[in-house]
Amino acid sequence: MRAVDLIRRKRDSGELAPAEIQQFIVAYTRGDIPDYQMSAWLMAVVLRGMSRPEIAALTEAMLHSGRVLDFSDLVGCKVDKHSTGGVGDKTSLVIAPIVAAGGLKVPMISGRGLGHSGGTLDKLESIPGFNVNLTLTEFRRVLATCGCALIGQTAEIAPADKKIYALRDVTGTVESPALICASIMSKKLAEGIDALVLDVKTGSGAFMKSLEDAAGLAELLVETGKRMGKKVVALLTDMNQPLGRKAGNAMEVAESIDVLAGAGPADLRELCLELAAWMFFLGERVKTLDEGKKLSADLIASGLAREKFREIVGLQGGDVGVIDDPHRLAHAQQTRDVISGARGYVSSIACEQLGVAGVVLGGGREKKEDTIDPAVGLEFHKRIGDSVERGEPLCTLHYNSDARLAEALHLAETAYKIGPEKPKSLPQLIYRVIDKRAE
Amino acid sequence: MRAVDLIRRKRDSGELAPAEIQQFIVAYTRGDIPDYQMSAWLMAVVLRGMSRPEIAALTEAMLHSGRVLDFSDLVGCKVDKHSTGGVGDKTSLVIAPIVAAGGLKVPMISGRGLGHSGGTLDKLESIPGFNVNLTLTEFRRVLATCGCALIGQTAEIAPADKKIYALRDVTGTVESPALICASIMSKKLAEGIDALVLDVKTGSGAFMKSLEDAAGLAELLVETGKRMGKKVVALLTDMNQPLGRKAGNAMEVAESIDVLAGAGPADLRELCLELAAWMFFLGERVKTLDEGKKLSADLIASGLAREKFREIVGLQGGDVGVIDDPHRLAHAQQTRDVISGARGYVSSIACEQLGVAGVVLGGGREKKEDTIDPAVGLEFHKRIGDSVERGEPLCTLHYNSDARLAEALHLAETAYKIGPEKPKSLPQLIYRVIDKRAE
Repeated sequence: MRAVDLIRRKRDSGELAPAEIQQFIVAYTRGDIPDYQMSAWLMAVVLRGMSRPEIAALTEAMLHSGRVLDFSDLVGCKVDKHSTGGVGDKTSLVIAPIVAAGGLKVPMISGRGLGHSGGTLDKLESIPGFNVNLTLTEFRRVLATCGCALIGQTAEIAPADKKIYALRDVTGTVESPALICASIMSKKLAEGIDALVLDVKTGSGAFMKSLEDAAGLAELLVETGKRMGKKVVALLTDMNQPLGRKAGNAMEVAESIDVLAGAGPADLRELCLELAAWMFFLGERVKTLDEGKKLSADLIASGLAREKFREIVGLQGGDVGVIDDPHRLAHAQQTRDVISGARGYVSSIACEQLGVAGVVLGGGREKKEDTIDPAVGLEFHKRIGDSVERGEPLCTLHYNSDARLAEALHLAETAYKIGPEKPKSLPQLIYRVIDKRAE
Repeated sequence: MRAVDLIRRKRDSGELAPAEIQQFIVAYTRGDIPDYQMSAWLMAVVLRGMSRPEIAALTEAMLHSGRVLDFSDLVGCKVDKHSTGGVGDKTSLVIAPIVAAGGLKVPMISGRGLGHSGGTLDKLESIPGFNVNLTLTEFRRVLATCGCALIGQTAEIAPADKKIYALRDVTGTVESPALICASIMSKKLAEGIDALVLDVKTGSGAFMKSLEDAAGLAELLVETGKRMGKKVVALLTDMNQPLGRKAGNAMEVAESIDVLAGAGPADLRELCLELAAWMFFLGERVKTLDEGKKLSADLIASGLAREKFREIVGLQGGDVGVIDDPHRLAHAQQTRDVISGARGYVSSIACEQLGVAGVVLGGGREKKEDTIDPAVGLEFHKRIGDSVERGEPLCTLHYNSDARLAEALHLAETAYKIGPEKPKSLPQLIYRVIDKRAE
């Protein structure tokens, strides 16, 4: 195999054999193929695409570039959920304890915030002491002890993905459904799970803005999971407005604790119940989705899910006091309301802009090296379809440094479109379920 | 400017501003942009193309990445010829002395053999002692003394091209008319020439197999030259069969000497006269092409062109004895005829295969590090349309090592297609002239 021949073949819209992809990825991971050849190949993939068998082969090669965890000795189905990311999407923090409390195992390897979108690891780290950098041995111990553990990608897990992802980021080769699919699935399947529920976001705050693009990616993910012998479904869910009422690392932890306590905003609670229900269903803990939803609601009502979260936080070194007293979490020194200049109804929200406003205030990273302020965030008062008075606050910025406040204010103000009439249709919470298990 | 933004823009079919291209090339040449970003951008260029202004900006940026020679103090127009390469194309060796003997200056910077195609530098080096690695000072001295000097690309000439070319070779990004154009023109315009005649080959032995692709590249080259204020025309010429009767480094020098002595094969002589005529015409040495052609023929007939070649060889350290006695050139120990298995007429020739046969015998390089055997080559006995008896030789292989003789024989044998009837049309020597000077 000569790397240049594989590059040329992909450039000319040809197909690579699974063994060729396997060798290419192994050689790259080992350092035998230089970055400049990989990046040319990645660009050819972005522009020429990959077939389903190629994507499966790439996923498999990246998966087996490192350790594939095996928790088959632990009782209970191993299930996980992955979201493609958005603004205010903190469902992982709610679902993981619910599903663990329900008797399944949730070995969750998560990521950090990326662009305008938050990341589970950053949110968890806003809990004082919480350690997301467990070794794989510690990961197994926490999982075995309490049914759930939440960590970041270690050097042992899918190292090919880690190396390729870093390269994609600086070579304009992020935006490829094939590469996104292989990256997500190689990491998730390395968790040693039996089933996976994917939350593929669509709308102004999602990476895939259109329903078609999101559906295309969801299909790819589900089919790739199926090819690899896993039970995988995808929910296409809305990201035309933030999920819940809060975005920002510590603020999202607080809102997650609200939901686990039986409170919290309706949209967030509802999506969490749906996703947890699917996890229970795929994990064969329940026979129907309805049953799964009822079980999830019961685990919240009984306080068991909340107690499970306390257990996880404790085992991973975090301050369990925050669960009874969320004021122990970092909170910002200053707030500023974003005021509506018009009267009417919220007709649309440029949701990505709201995410960027949070980044600009210091709640996210513009460069990998940036440190983040866990206290920073946004509180949302108006959703699409809500009536608004002139001068009424649309959202509130929480911040510590006003260095870029004007920029954040501008982003947030211009994100809301106010129209004279109530919009005829509102975004649905869930657009579609993609389930190919029976096909 | 962030490199990743320029990569993304090209990936999405956007256009880059001249200043952006300029900065990108400067930064890459300086080492501030890594190879992996350049290769991703090059692949995006291959698949998305470049606009004419982008190509001109790229050419200009590559040209000015190094020294641009200035021979304006030397009397006479500075003209050059460049061929896109083929099998048996040794016109540079004939034309350069003709045009210099006619009073123009020919500062020719050439390349080495590439794939199946020969290179002027390798041919010249088959003359014992001939030094193609002159410094720019020596280059100028030889040019001033005899009107012509023939060297390779030095480190000072278009270093951006040198660096990018090496990267393209290993990243599957050679085949882009835009990149080919910028590479050729940046080197040629660095020679400080006033006019340039391009010989763009088309056919089975050319890099551009179809007339359309060759014409497209020729148009690009001519237009780019015009944008940069040079007089440039392109001749689209045939490469469906070897040019002349010999291919191989020393064998081509011998055949060139034949043409300069008034002999040699008709097709080679004719193309040399045409190309030299265009150089005289663009260099304003003559008023019409016919006059140019007559001048070229006269310079051969009078022996002045041959004497000029002797002068050049002498000034560049070569053995001038080879001009009177071509047997002083290296010649192979063994020959093997390639025999026709059928009776009829040559209907087509897979010309690239004949070039590869020469490479396989050691006359060219498969890897950059390979050394070449100057004596190796092919002698062609049959051209398209010629009648052939069964058992008659089609061509003869000249070689020293029979390590890969079988492979070369197979390539050469299968290159010739013999049909029962004389083909209705034969390849033309020159298909078209592309001249945009008046537009």
